[in-house]
Amino acid sequence: MKVALFGAGRIGKVHAASIKMDPRSELVAVTDVMTEAAEALAKEHGIAVRSPQEILDDPSIDAILIASSTNTHADLVEAGVKAGKAIFCEKPIDLSLERALQVRAIAASHDRPMMMGFNRRFDPNFAAVKAALDAGDVGKGELLSVTSYDPAPPPVSYIKVSGGLYRDMMIHDFDMCAFLFGMPVSVMAHGSCLVDPEIGAAGDVDTAVVVLTYADGRLATIRNSRRALYGYDQRVEVLGSKGTLAAENVVENTVVTTTEAGVVSAKPVYFFLERYMRAYEIEWRAFVDAFVGVSPVPASIQDGVNALALAEAAHRSFLEGRPIEITSALTGA
Amino acid sequence: MKVALFGAGRIGKVHAASIKMDPRSELVAVTDVMTEAAEALAKEHGIAVRSPQEILDDPSIDAILIASSTNTHADLVEAGVKAGKAIFCEKPIDLSLERALQVRAIAASHDRPMMMGFNRRFDPNFAAVKAALDAGDVGKGELLSVTSYDPAPPPVSYIKVSGGLYRDMMIHDFDMCAFLFGMPVSVMAHGSCLVDPEIGAAGDVDTAVVVLTYADGRLATIRNSRRALYGYDQRVEVLGSKGTLAAENVVENTVVTTTEAGVVSAKPVYFFLERYMRAYEIEWRAFVDAFVGVSPVPASIQDGVNALALAEAAHRSFLEGRPIEITSALTGA
Amino acid sequence: MKVALFGAGRIGKVHAASIKMDPRSELVAVTDVMTEAAEALAKEHGIAVRSPQEILDDPSIDAILIASSTNTHADLVEAGVKAGKAIFCEKPIDLSLERALQVRAIAASHDRPMMMGFNRRFDPNFAAVKAALDAGDVGKGELLSVTSYDPAPPPVSYIKVSGGLYRDMMIHDFDMCAFLFGMPVSVMAHGSCLVDPEIGAAGDVDTAVVVLTYADGRLATIRNSRRALYGYDQRVEVLGSKGTLAAENVVENTVVTTTEAGVVSAKPVYFFLERYMRAYEIEWRAFVDAFVGVSPVPASIQDGVNALALAEAAHRSFLEGRPIEITSALTGA
Amino acid sequence: MKVALFGAGRIGKVHAASIKMDPRSELVAVTDVMTEAAEALAKEHGIAVRSPQEILDDPSIDAILIASSTNTHADLVEAGVKAGKAIFCEKPIDLSLERALQVRAIAASHDRPMMMGFNRRFDPNFAAVKAALDAGDVGKGELLSVTSYDPAPPPVSYIKVSGGLYRDMMIHDFDMCAFLFGMPVSVMAHGSCLVDPEIGAAGDVDTAVVVLTYADGRLATIRNSRRALYGYDQRVEVLGSKGTLAAENVVENTVVTTTEAGVVSAKPVYFFLERYMRAYEIEWRAFVDAFVGVSPVPASIQDGVNALALAEAAHRSFLEGRPIEITSALTGA
Repeated sequence: MKVALFGAGRIGKVHAASIKMDPRSELVAVTDVMTEAAEALAKEHGIAVRSPQEILDDPSIDAILIASSTNTHADLVEAGVKAGKAIFCEKPIDLSLERALQVRAIAASHDRPMMMGFNRRFDPNFAAVKAALDAGDVGKGELLSVTSYDPAPPPVSYIKVSGGLYRDMMIHDFDMCAFLFGMPVSVMAHGSCLVDPEIGAAGDVDTAVVVLTYADGRLATIRNSRRALYGYDQRVEVLGSKGTLAAENVVENTVVTTTEAGVVSAKPVYFFLERYMRAYEIEWRAFVDAFVGVSPVPASIQDGVNALALAEAAHRSFLEGRPIEITSALTGA
Repeated sequence: MKVALFGAGRIGKVHAASIKMDPRSELVAVTDVMTEAAEALAKEHGIAVRSPQEILDDPSIDAILIASSTNTHADLVEAGVKAGKAIFCEKPIDLSLERALQVRAIAASHDRPMMMGFNRRFDPNFAAVKAALDAGDVGKGELLSVTSYDPAPPPVSYIKVSGGLYRDMMIHDFDMCAFLFGMPVSVMAHGSCLVDPEIGAAGDVDTAVVVLTYADGRLATIRNSRRALYGYDQRVEVLGSKGTLAAENVVENTVVTTTEAGVVSAKPVYFFLERYMRAYEIEWRAFVDAFVGVSPVPASIQDGVNALALAEAAHRSFLEGRPIEITSALTGA
Repeated sequence: MKVALFGAGRIGKVHAASIKMDPRSELVAVTDVMTEAAEALAKEHGIAVRSPQEILDDPSIDAILIASSTNTHADLVEAGVKAGKAIFCEKPIDLSLERALQVRAIAASHDRPMMMGFNRRFDPNFAAVKAALDAGDVGKGELLSVTSYDPAPPPVSYIKVSGGLYRDMMIHDFDMCAFLFGMPVSVMAHGSCLVDPEIGAAGDVDTAVVVLTYADGRLATIRNSRRALYGYDQRVEVLGSKGTLAAENVVENTVVTTTEAGVVSAKPVYFFLERYMRAYEIEWRAFVDAFVGVSPVPASIQDGVNALALAEAAHRSFLEGRPIEITSALTGA
Repeated sequence: MKVALFGAGRIGKVHAASIKMDPRSELVAVTDVMTEAAEALAKEHGIAVRSPQEILDDPSIDAILIASSTNTHADLVEAGVKAGKAIFCEKPIDLSLERALQVRAIAASHDRPMMMGFNRRFDPNFAAVKAALDAGDVGKGELLSVTSYDPAPPPVSYIKVSGGLYRDMMIHDFDMCAFLFGMPVSVMAHGSCLVDPEIGAAGDVDTAVVVLTYADGRLATIRNSRRALYGYDQRVEVLGSKGTLAAENVVENTVVTTTEAGVVSAKPVYFFLERYMRAYEIEWRAFVDAFVGVSPVPASIQDGVNALALAEAAHRSFLEGRPIEITSALTGA
C-alpha cells in the first residue's frame, strides 16, 4: 500500500512514523503548503515532495492520508474519492455539519476504505473499556462519564479559527460517547470562560460540561477544560448494572516517593503525543487492515458526521440555554 | 450537656453511640412512636423512655436530637425552639421548601445552637478536600464533580414517600456542592429509571445527573444512582486553576491479591453506616463544640434550606426539561 | 467479666478503652507504680486504684490485663495463674527465653484463658491476608516478606533496657511470620546502625534484615527500621504458587491532589495507636470470646515463647554472623 | 555507525529493531549458527548473512552486538577487541568469573566503547529511582529491596546449562543493586526448590532470597522466583533517611473494573519483552551516544564482572550456608 501524506505538521509527522512501522504500508510522497515542513519530512523519510494534483493523478498511489488543516479536509476527501484513493482523514471532516453531509453524500458511492482519525478509539485503555462493556463485564451501561482536560490552552489565534471548544476539542469526547454508548437523542451544554478571558473575548468557552441523553434513558456527561496544569487528563468511566469500568490516566512512570510531604506518584503524561502515540500506530494498522480486507473500517465518515452533529447541537444548546434534540436524519439512521 | 433523642431507628442508634463517645454530652432520654425500638435503645443505654412532651417540658434537658421520620422534623424543630432547646436535626428539614422556610423564620430568633445533620461535611476525606480547596492547594475551584451511588435501592414503599431522588438522596450532594462551592444560580436535572421499573411506576427516577451553574462561571455536576452493586460509591473531585483534588472511596481493607485473574483490591465499604460512622462522631462533637461555645455551628438551618431549594429546583428542572434559576430570596442572601 | 488493669500508661489506656467497648467486659480496678497515672485513668473510668495484691486476692475479679513494663510480665503471669485469673498479657512474656519457658511451664496447668497481646494478628488487613492464604487464594505460600518501620526511634534510654531491636521491635514481625507461615527451622540476621549512632553506642542496631528458612523450603524476610520519616510502614506480602497477597499501608485519608508537582496522596498513619486502634478492639473481643467459651485463645503463651525464641536466635545470628537453627524443644513441638 | 549482529534469536531481534530506531546506527550484517534464523532476520531487515570472521575482518563495520548464546560471549568480546570494534555484549560476560576476569584484562587496553547489556538500568522507572536517589529525594539510601519474579520457569534443559539461578536470573538483580547502591562487602544466599522438583533434581533452586551487606552498613535484599503466575514482577524499593522510593510494576492497561467481586485492575505485563522493550531502545541509544562521544558507556565490562562476582559469591554462600565476603580484587577497586 503506497501512501501519500497531505500535511507535514505535528500530526503529519506522527502519521508518517506510523506508516513506517507497518511493513504493509509505504510512504511515497508528501505535500504541504508550508514548503519547508514538507521538505524536512520528505528528507527524513527519503521520499519526494509532490503537489496535491500530482499525488491525486498518480495511479501508483493507493491511499492518501489527510493531516492538513481542517478547512482543507472536505475538499481533499472529495478529490480523493474522485481519484479513487483509499482515504484516511484526520477529524473533523469540516467545521460545518452541512458541508460534512455533502462529503458524506459524495463518499457514499466510494468503494475504497475511508476512515476518520478518531485516535482515542485505538487507545489500549479505552479500547479495553469498550471490549469489557460489550462483553457485559459490568452488565448494561447506564451512566457514562468522559473527562478530557488539555494541559494548556492553544493560542487565542487558534481559538478564533477553531470552531469553538465543542467542535474543536469536545468532538473527540462526542466520538468517545458514540463509540461506547452510540448516538444520544438530546444534548445539553454548559460552558464558561474560566481559564483565559481572551478566550471569552474571542467568543469561546474554555471549560464545559455536556450531558447527553439516550433514548433508553442512559446518560452521559462530558467534562472539558482547556487547562489542567498537571498534564493531559483523559479518563472514561461507565456505571453499569453490575459495576463500574474506569480507564484511568496514563502516567509518566511507576515510581512512588513517600516522604513527610506525602506519597507522590507520577503525573499523567503531558499531552496527546505522549498519551496517544501507541493509539496512532494501532489506528494506522486498522486502516491498513481495512485496505487489505482483513476487517472493516473502525471509524467511518458517518462517525465523523455523528461527532460533528453532537458538537453542533452542543454549541446551539450552549447559546440557547436549553437541551437540543438530535434528529435521526443527521445520524444516517 | 444533657440530650434527649427523638427516634430510635437505625440513625438514632448511631447518634446515641456518638453522644456516648463525647464525654461532654450525656444521653438522658429517648422517645419513638415505635415503643419497642425506644425501649430497646433505652435499655442498652440505661436511660428512660419518655414522651415528646415530657422531654420538651424538662428544663434539665439541654438539647434534642431529632432523628425521627422526615415528616416530623419541622414540627419538632419548632417545638424545640419554643422549649428553648439546642437542636440537632437530621436532614432534611422537610420535603417542602415552603415549610422549611417557615421553620427558618421561626428559628431565626432562637438563640441556642441549631444544626442540620449533613454528616458528609464531617467525613475526614471530604473535610480534607474542603480544607485543601480553601487553602488554595489547587488554585481557584472551577469544575466540581460529585459521585454518589447507593449500593441498592430502598423498597418502593419508601420511594413513594421519599419526596423523590432529588429531595431524598441527592440532597446530600446538593449540600456537598454548597459546602465546597457555595450556592449556584441555576440547576439543570436529567433523570432516568434504569434500575427498577417499579421506581419509575412510582413516579421517581433512580439514575440522575444534575449540572449546577455558578454566578462566576464555575460548574458542578452530580451523578446519582440507586444501585452500584459493589457498594457505596462516594467521591468528590475538584478541578482548580492549579490542579485536581479528589476524595476517593473508603475501601474495606488494604489487601491486594494478584493472580492470573488480575490485581484485585477491596471494594468500597458497603453503605453509609460503614462509610460515615466516623463522620457521625465528628459531627456530634462539632455540635457539642457549638453548644459549649468553642466554635460556630458548621451546618445551619439555612444550609438545610439551601439544599432543599436545590433539590426542589432539580425536581422542577427534570419535570420541565430546562434549567431552573435559583433565586437569592430562597437562599437567604 | 470483671477486669483489673496492670499498667496505666499509653497502652494501658488503649486497653481500658477496648474493655469499655465490649459490653461483656467491665473494668473494675487499675494499678500502676506511677500513682498519678493510675489515679488519672481510674478517675476517667470511674473505678478504683488498688494494689496488685488486692486485685489478685479479690475473687470477684475474673481477669487481669497486664500492660505494665516488660520486666513485670513474667511475675504477674505467674501470680495471675496462682490466683486463678484469666490473663491477657502484653508481649513479650519476658526478655529472657529461659524465663519465658518457666512461665510456660507454670501456665501449662492453668485452666483459665491466657492470651498474649500480639495485636497485629487482629489488624483487619493482616487478618484478611491470613484468611486468604489459608483459603488458598494464592495457592501454597512460598515467600513471605514483612516490612515494619517505626516513624522514629525511641529514646536511647529506652533502647538500653529494651533487649535490643530483635526482641523489642522485631518480635511483632516474628509473630507475624509464625502467624502466617508457622515456625521456621533457621534464622539469619543482619543489622546495622544507620539512624542514630547513639543506638549503636548502646550496643543495638536500628536497621535490620532477617531471613527465616522453613523445613519445607519456604522463605521469609523481615525488614525493620527504627525510622521512616513518613509514618508507620507496616506491610506484609506473600508470594504463593498462584499469585501474590499484599497488605498495604493504612493511610490518613483518601484524598489525591494532582498538580504540576505530581500526584500526592496521604501518608501512612503515623504510629501504632492510629494504625492498630481497631486491632486492639478486635483483640480484646477475642479474649472475651475465649473467656465466655465462644472460641479458643487466638494467641497463646506458646506463641509468646515462639516469637521470643526467634528473637533470641536472630540476636545470636547477628552476633555470630551465621544462621542459627531453631530447635523444636523451644517451640513446644 | 555500522553494526553487525551476532545472534538472531529472540533477543537479537529486539536489538535489531532498536538499531533501526536510532537514525545514527545501521544494521549491516547478521550471523548465527542457526542459519535459518539468520536468514529470516537478514531478509526482514534487507541485510546480508555473513560469517563471524567476515564481520570481524570487514573494516567498514564499526561495532558488533553480541546476542548469541552465553558460552560464546567471552570469545567474541576478545575477537571484537582484537578486530578493533566497538562492542555491545549481552550479559553475562561468561558463567565463569575467572574467564570474565581474563576478558576484563584483554579489554582493558581497548579504546573503543564496550558496553554490557544490563537493560534494566535503562528502564524508565528504575532509572527514575536511580535519579531520585542520587538527587537525595529520600536522603541517604539505607535499605534496598529488589523483587524479581519470572512468570514461568524455563525448560529444565535450559536450567541445566544456565549456570544456576544466581548466575542466570539473579545476575540482573545483582547489577540493579550495584547500580543503585554500589558493591557490597558480603553476600548471604538462601534458596529452595518450590516451583518444580525437576529444577531441584537438576541441582538448582527456583526460589531465592539474598542479602547484601555494605561496608557502611547499608543492606539490600533480593527476592527471586521462577514463577509468578500473574506475570513479570519487577520492583525496586529503597528506604532512605528521609523516605521511601519505589518503582512499581508496569501493568497492561489502566482499566479498573469494580463489581461485587472486588476492584480489579490490570496485571503486570507478562515478561521481559513487554516490560523492557522501551529499555532496550534507550539502552541502544546510550551505546550509540558512547560511540559518538556524547557520554560515557553506562554499563561497563567491570559492571559485568561485578555482577558475576556477586552471583558466584551467592552460589557459594548457598552451598556453604554462610555469608561470603566480596574481595575488592574482584571488583577492580
